[in-house]
Amino acid sequence: MLIVMNHNATAADVAAVSRIVQGMGFRAEPIPGSERTAIGVLGNHGYVEDCNILELSGVQRVIHVSKPYKLVSRDFHPENTIVDVAGVKVGQGCRPVVVGGPCAVESEEQIVKTALFVKQCGGDMLRGGAFKPRTGPHTFQGLREEGLKLLAIAGKASGLPIVTEIMSPDNVGLVAEYADLLQVGARNMQNFDLLRELGKIRKPILLKRGMSATVEEFLAAAEYILAEGNDQVILCERGIRTFETATRNTLDLSVVPLIKEMTHLPIMVDPSHATGKRSLVSPMAKAALVAGADGVLVEVHPEPEKALSDGPQSLTFPGFEQMMKEIDRLTIFLQNG
Amino acid sequence: MLIVMNHNATAADVAAVSRIVQGMGFRAEPIPGSERTAIGVLGNHGYVEDCNILELSGVQRVIHVSKPYKLVSRDFHPENTIVDVAGVKVGQGCRPVVVGGPCAVESEEQIVKTALFVKQCGGDMLRGGAFKPRTGPHTFQGLREEGLKLLAIAGKASGLPIVTEIMSPDNVGLVAEYADLLQVGARNMQNFDLLRELGKIRKPILLKRGMSATVEEFLAAAEYILAEGNDQVILCERGIRTFETATRNTLDLSVVPLIKEMTHLPIMVDPSHATGKRSLVSPMAKAALVAGADGVLVEVHPEPEKALSDGPQSLTFPGFEQMMKEIDRLTIFLQNG
Amino acid sequence: MLIVMNHNATAADVAAVSRIVQGMGFRAEPIPGSERTAIGVLGNHGYVEDCNILELSGVQRVIHVSKPYKLVSRDFHPENTIVDVAGVKVGQGCRPVVVGGPCAVESEEQIVKTALFVKQCGGDMLRGGAFKPRTGPHTFQGLREEGLKLLAIAGKASGLPIVTEIMSPDNVGLVAEYADLLQVGARNMQNFDLLRELGKIRKPILLKRGMSATVEEFLAAAEYILAEGNDQVILCERGIRTFETATRNTLDLSVVPLIKEMTHLPIMVDPSHATGKRSLVSPMAKAALVAGADGVLVEVHPEPEKALSDGPQSLTFPGFEQMMKEIDRLTIFLQNG
Amino acid sequence: MLIVMNHNATAADVAAVSRIVQGMGFRAEPIPGSERTAIGVLGNHGYVEDCNILELSGVQRVIHVSKPYKLVSRDFHPENTIVDVAGVKVGQGCRPVVVGGPCAVESEEQIVKTALFVKQCGGDMLRGGAFKPRTGPHTFQGLREEGLKLLAIAGKASGLPIVTEIMSPDNVGLVAEYADLLQVGARNMQNFDLLRELGKIRKPILLKRGMSATVEEFLAAAEYILAEGNDQVILCERGIRTFETATRNTLDLSVVPLIKEMTHLPIMVDPSHATGKRSLVSPMAKAALVAGADGVLVEVHPEPEKALSDGPQSLTFPGFEQMMKEIDRLTIFLQNG
Repeated sequence: MLIVMNHNATAADVAAVSRIVQGMGFRAEPIPGSERTAIGVLGNHGYVEDCNILELSGVQRVIHVSKPYKLVSRDFHPENTIVDVAGVKVGQGCRPVVVGGPCAVESEEQIVKTALFVKQCGGDMLRGGAFKPRTGPHTFQGLREEGLKLLAIAGKASGLPIVTEIMSPDNVGLVAEYADLLQVGARNMQNFDLLRELGKIRKPILLKRGMSATVEEFLAAAEYILAEGNDQVILCERGIRTFETATRNTLDLSVVPLIKEMTHLPIMVDPSHATGKRSLVSPMAKAALVAGADGVLVEVHPEPEKALSDGPQSLTFPGFEQMMKEIDRLTIFLQNG
Repeated sequence: MLIVMNHNATAADVAAVSRIVQGMGFRAEPIPGSERTAIGVLGNHGYVEDCNILELSGVQRVIHVSKPYKLVSRDFHPENTIVDVAGVKVGQGCRPVVVGGPCAVESEEQIVKTALFVKQCGGDMLRGGAFKPRTGPHTFQGLREEGLKLLAIAGKASGLPIVTEIMSPDNVGLVAEYADLLQVGARNMQNFDLLRELGKIRKPILLKRGMSATVEEFLAAAEYILAEGNDQVILCERGIRTFETATRNTLDLSVVPLIKEMTHLPIMVDPSHATGKRSLVSPMAKAALVAGADGVLVEVHPEPEKALSDGPQSLTFPGFEQMMKEIDRLTIFLQNG
Repeated sequence: MLIVMNHNATAADVAAVSRIVQGMGFRAEPIPGSERTAIGVLGNHGYVEDCNILELSGVQRVIHVSKPYKLVSRDFHPENTIVDVAGVKVGQGCRPVVVGGPCAVESEEQIVKTALFVKQCGGDMLRGGAFKPRTGPHTFQGLREEGLKLLAIAGKASGLPIVTEIMSPDNVGLVAEYADLLQVGARNMQNFDLLRELGKIRKPILLKRGMSATVEEFLAAAEYILAEGNDQVILCERGIRTFETATRNTLDLSVVPLIKEMTHLPIMVDPSHATGKRSLVSPMAKAALVAGADGVLVEVHPEPEKALSDGPQSLTFPGFEQMMKEIDRLTIFLQNG
Repeated sequence: MLIVMNHNATAADVAAVSRIVQGMGFRAEPIPGSERTAIGVLGNHGYVEDCNILELSGVQRVIHVSKPYKLVSRDFHPENTIVDVAGVKVGQGCRPVVVGGPCAVESEEQIVKTALFVKQCGGDMLRGGAFKPRTGPHTFQGLREEGLKLLAIAGKASGLPIVTEIMSPDNVGLVAEYADLLQVGARNMQNFDLLRELGKIRKPILLKRGMSATVEEFLAAAEYILAEGNDQVILCERGIRTFETATRNTLDLSVVPLIKEMTHLPIMVDPSHATGKRSLVSPMAKAALVAGADGVLVEVHPEPEKALSDGPQSLTFPGFEQMMKEIDRLTIFLQNG
């Protein structure tokens, strides 16, 4: 529920309404705006009677929000959120960022070599999986803590912030020690205990859309993180599951401008997982930026044909370099638009 | 990888092959059969060279299994697994079971009343959610531990085993204290850390299919549990996400006979979540049994119109009673078939 | 739009309202019921102003139907429609029918042999494609008119009514000469010119659901046929297209009881195309009947391994015979229910 | 089947092989290339024995194509096809085109006004539906022949080529009289009789992808047109049907670069039908061009709020003008790339 105050409501009015709301057992979150102040009511299960509230001084109207999210919506927070990842700014109005790296950390040589190359080509962050969610238990599950340590070495060598996946609430402390941006994978988008735990830390989160998540469910998942107090969340479209098998998933690029209308959070795109095909990564990365994405996440590997996972969708070094040149030109074009 | 031994291979042959496999860094799991012994090779990441193995005494052939599961497959384990839930047997050849109860535990009166009614109508187990996964954080999330205690009271009052959802690895101990059958919900089907934790306990697991999980991914998720040592797993089809919105999900009933061919594990069906409509629950429950399901899970509530969640798909008491009568007749018909 | 008359409205009232409606440029279709008469308004594009109508004598209220179908809905026609296919009755309350035959007519020997066997096992109609819709132009497209002639021979030899596909408005006359039930395939469900043409003939139509058609679109497609004057339409669920590839399509069996609520038309199920796997046909045929289907359509071929199309999903003769025995028992059970 | 000749095979070799193929009852289509000649074998149903062919002079190898299309594939025709629509060139290497106009032709004023505005803003063709496929029979079905005449007036007034939909084989002659580019809508993508008829005329065809068509089925549908002799086919991605309802369909933009790899035919994108939301049209049109599309199709209406169909997805005049300015800049950027 959203309580919209009059243009000329006083701070005392706002405080009084907030006290009443708290007295009803809910949380009240004032949302000051340039034209009006609104008070978000959180913690209610279902409909809240509004007749008493409407009579309070300074109250203009009450909006019963049926949507499962509030803090992430533009209604509650009209200004764009800029997420700061160890100094790299992500969000509307910032230069779009490129996150590059292998699907999985495999060895020190592999990750350091890649990190240096990503940096050299102008990439902004290094990605690499240490904990890998795999369909079956009998395949490579990542180097785990050892992988985190190698990422730290590569991050230090290149100066790039580190992006890596977190799979379990138990590991939040461990991963947060090494990562500058903690990634929640598509399979865990509705792992609510994990989301709540990530809401309690003070590091930014990259939340990937679930394979069959609607836009509403995607934003509601982000709401779990914000509701615990962490508003440094970057969304990431990575393809949805459809009947089409010519690509690994179906990149739902239209949600980029749509989500920008609905939320103040930044959104990035992962064309590697979305398409599953190396040759489609660069065109879709550029299309994502033109559609308004705040950045892209791409897989790059020194020897994709020997990669332990996701080889066919990983760019080679020359492929990554070429894409970066084209993205550079495109970014300049877009910023002069 | 599966190493198939000759008909007349000796125990010494099997032991020798197993030692070699272990020496290669893998686990060897002998699978004695009535006609042949096979040795499952577990723990390999990718293809394993087989030229040395093929020359060992007693080896007939090597099957490179590309599937992400082995222990759950009929190849590895041809006989049907019967799962024992506090004395209630579930599986091929057993009388199909009916699990009834509300979506969420709401009060002692509600859950005890429902438990007694389910028991009186011939139901086999009581279901009820204490930990509820909800799309957004601002709606009812379940009574949590308090809910578990109410379930225990209702279980004791009715004599029915308890089925309830587990959402996080951290809560496995707590939930296992109260539940006879621990349910993994659709959203957590690929919460691999949770699955691994459940593989380490000695209570049966009800694993629901993910909303966009293929049959192969579903079986591979079960494999995570079996791989840790717990083979008491019941699968549950609960509808998949498709373009059709006339029903809440699309009940994929064809997978029941298909999964019976692929695995030895029992499979149940949840027509309440699948259809989302009260009037469709009874026809689809009966169709599920005819298709070969080992049981059904249905929602029933003393006052569905006041339910805190899933009211429209919950059966009323008279509706549940009528369904139970029809299922009784159908079960007798099927057993005489 | 639906104009509901008072309980005690006179025939003159109904006639007067109808005249007014016609004067507005629309068609008026009185729908006498046991308790009330309603007048369906057809031919309007969009919303119709109702203020004048509401003041007419005998008018109780006006229902603005936003659904794209009226004639097929239970609101307009509460009683079940029974379709008569050359003497075989199909619909709620009738014995469920079995339609058997090969995917395509291949030779006189093949189709006559199959027809005699279907008849001998108790099947009700013979199916066989003469015009075959194929994904690409370079594969077998059916024997066309020659196929129709062979169907006629097989129909005569066995005494079974003939079901065959019609693909084009131009061929309606030709196919109607040979077929007792004209089938519209999934790809043509929204071939509106074909549907209109079929609405003008006096032979029953079997309308298959499109691969990605919602229930509403399915019923609206049937509406095209009824709107032209032919109400002898049987619906047929044959699987929808989803992400799951373990079966050819996903059989959406829940729509059987759902569609029964929404429309008075009979509905059949085709488990052969839905599953694409021989072993799943019989269990899903029986599940369909328990869910309330008025009949099933299954593929059977004397030598499935040599079939020019759809071999893997065709039953063998022994398989068909076994399924018919089980369906017989089930039908008796259901009728005694 | 594709017969690949040796580098130094003679014209006599090619002719001899072609004769043999024809003698087997198939069509032989020589495909001269810069490095090799290949001979396409068409008209076979299933596998063709190749042992005799392999022994012929000049034959290097035989490729058994399992794909349901040949003429549309790059293997058969490596060079890009440029389609000429009344002087406007469409295809790889040409300036991307913009087709604008209302969903349906409603009146002379509406269509002429729109045509002049589209032309003034730099649009390349005028679109407008005269025959409208609608879900149900009781809604506006288009002005039919009258609509075609109004399109002709608007085309003449503006000098723009006309794009309009064809729904039935019977109307091919009529529509071809007025249209410069005949559009096959998504619902008719597998209306094979219509496709065959369009293969016999000498006007270019715009083939829209079916709502649940795979890329392979899409190309195979185009094959029907080419197989009859008309190679002037433009493909059009217009969104597929998925679980997501936040947009009308899901724009599958990744197929643009993918289809460019698979076929020599041009591909356009329709962001209006794909997204169903006015605000998403311009960003997705630009993203499509960056992904490599040869043009875009957008709906524009003088008064979208009064449109008889598709109002919410139609651009206003100022919206179209703004998009055209941005597309102009983008096109110049891309051509200098």
